[in-house]
Amino acid sequence: MLVNGKKCDLISIRDRGLLYGDGVFRTIRASQGHALHWPLHYLKLQHDCFVLGITCPNFVLLSDELRSLLSAQSECVIKLIVTRGSGTRGYAPNILEEPTRIWDVFSHPKYPMDWAANGVKVRWCQLRLSHQPRFAGIKHLNRLENVLAAAESGDEDIAEGLLMDVMGNVIEGVRSNLFLVSQGRLITPDLSNCGVAGVQRERVMAWASENGIPVQVRSFLPDDVMEADEVFLVNSVIGVWPVRELEQRRWELFPISTRVREYLSKQDSR
Amino acid sequence: MLVNGKKCDLISIRDRGLLYGDGVFRTIRASQGHALHWPLHYLKLQHDCFVLGITCPNFVLLSDELRSLLSAQSECVIKLIVTRGSGTRGYAPNILEEPTRIWDVFSHPKYPMDWAANGVKVRWCQLRLSHQPRFAGIKHLNRLENVLAAAESGDEDIAEGLLMDVMGNVIEGVRSNLFLVSQGRLITPDLSNCGVAGVQRERVMAWASENGIPVQVRSFLPDDVMEADEVFLVNSVIGVWPVRELEQRRWELFPISTRVREYLSKQDSR
Repeated sequence: MLVNGKKCDLISIRDRGLLYGDGVFRTIRASQGHALHWPLHYLKLQHDCFVLGITCPNFVLLSDELRSLLSAQSECVIKLIVTRGSGTRGYAPNILEEPTRIWDVFSHPKYPMDWAANGVKVRWCQLRLSHQPRFAGIKHLNRLENVLAAAESGDEDIAEGLLMDVMGNVIEGVRSNLFLVSQGRLITPDLSNCGVAGVQRERVMAWASENGIPVQVRSFLPDDVMEADEVFLVNSVIGVWPVRELEQRRWELFPISTRVREYLSKQDSR
Repeated sequence: MLVNGKKCDLISIRDRGLLYGDGVFRTIRASQGHALHWPLHYLKLQHDCFVLGITCPNFVLLSDELRSLLSAQSECVIKLIVTRGSGTRGYAPNILEEPTRIWDVFSHPKYPMDWAANGVKVRWCQLRLSHQPRFAGIKHLNRLENVLAAAESGDEDIAEGLLMDVMGNVIEGVRSNLFLVSQGRLITPDLSNCGVAGVQRERVMAWASENGIPVQVRSFLPDDVMEADEVFLVNSVIGVWPVRELEQRRWELFPISTRVREYLSKQDSR
């Protein structure tokens, strides 16, 4: 763990990350001492900081810190948090605040071996995501909706919960982005009102456009999920999980999900 | 400062308060070594913890910690944060997590002397509050909306920003609750979709009902604010501020706001 470049696992109780969730984060997979797609993660971090008006720490500084972390542990999941810093009392940001850089390292979570190949069971969450276009898509630290959605189910066989927004549109998984395959196209939810636009979502869209597969970014309903030829979930830790089971619906064949998974993991191991 | 009963101003970078804003807080004014309305604050804390499924630390334990803080500083503003604790990676709460208790102490902020008596200038915020009925009214740590709303204005003459929701309903001040006085009634926004229901809001409503003044809790629009006979703001630190100026509108007489202020401050000094 590193906090502002020092080996440390503590932050100030006056840090705005704690007080207000006033910060952003990235979850990055590292393999063979290499942080996968780090430049892409940095671009997202920079974008997210910009939207919230947080000064993004520079690429060289963060890359150096990342290197020092990876020298100690080469196969891991890395979490990077950047907060607006710690300052005076009150909501208004202070221009003198220096952002806080927090790095934490975890071992790879152990998911059942067959989830990636044979698909996962998912559920609908009760909680509906609120619309906040000012910071929709941003991976910020205001994550109470995800916490309460994750708390709904204690069933370990269910790999992920699917979230709708207040209008009933399907948005994402609790910790993943969602794609449908329908009539040869990819469809992924519009995230301009809520949700988190992850790095893997972008990679899938880039892959599709390189391979002549049309991608639609648009609103859709639970019925569209049920009628899709394939449904799959992506994030930086899980990679790609096809959906095998959702309520009464079963999917057995995952040709596109498998192509996506093979492409992403081939790129990862390059 | 106290963290889990120890003199300390640091918390773990794995605390869910930082990671997800997964916690609640209270801001309490202390005068002459006495935390004003502490039992009322505790009831709210307990309610808010319950809604989020956080185990609320018990009253005796928190009261003891509060007493030890006040023995060192008798005139101050106290912030109490309770988070779900620090645990394993992932959004899902873990039943083994122990809540984290964080106390911080600040000196009374110095506001211009005449704001309480002669009223304050306020503005409309651009940012609109999202609807999340699952934790509307709760004083939780997901406060990015308040941060961005506070960041909109750098004008020190403006004491507070007024927030609307996504539907255009008036909800609250950035750090205060709002009341209108209209035809002898008090009107305060319905907070079932967004906003924070503060302790002072409850005290004002209790005062009104004791004094035979009708109170309406309902949705209303900016026009209703502009047409109100009086508008006033409350929170535990400021007490009561009548509104003197909002865009082109001026208010000069504050008979009800003054009665409310005198009642609350008299009760405070008992």
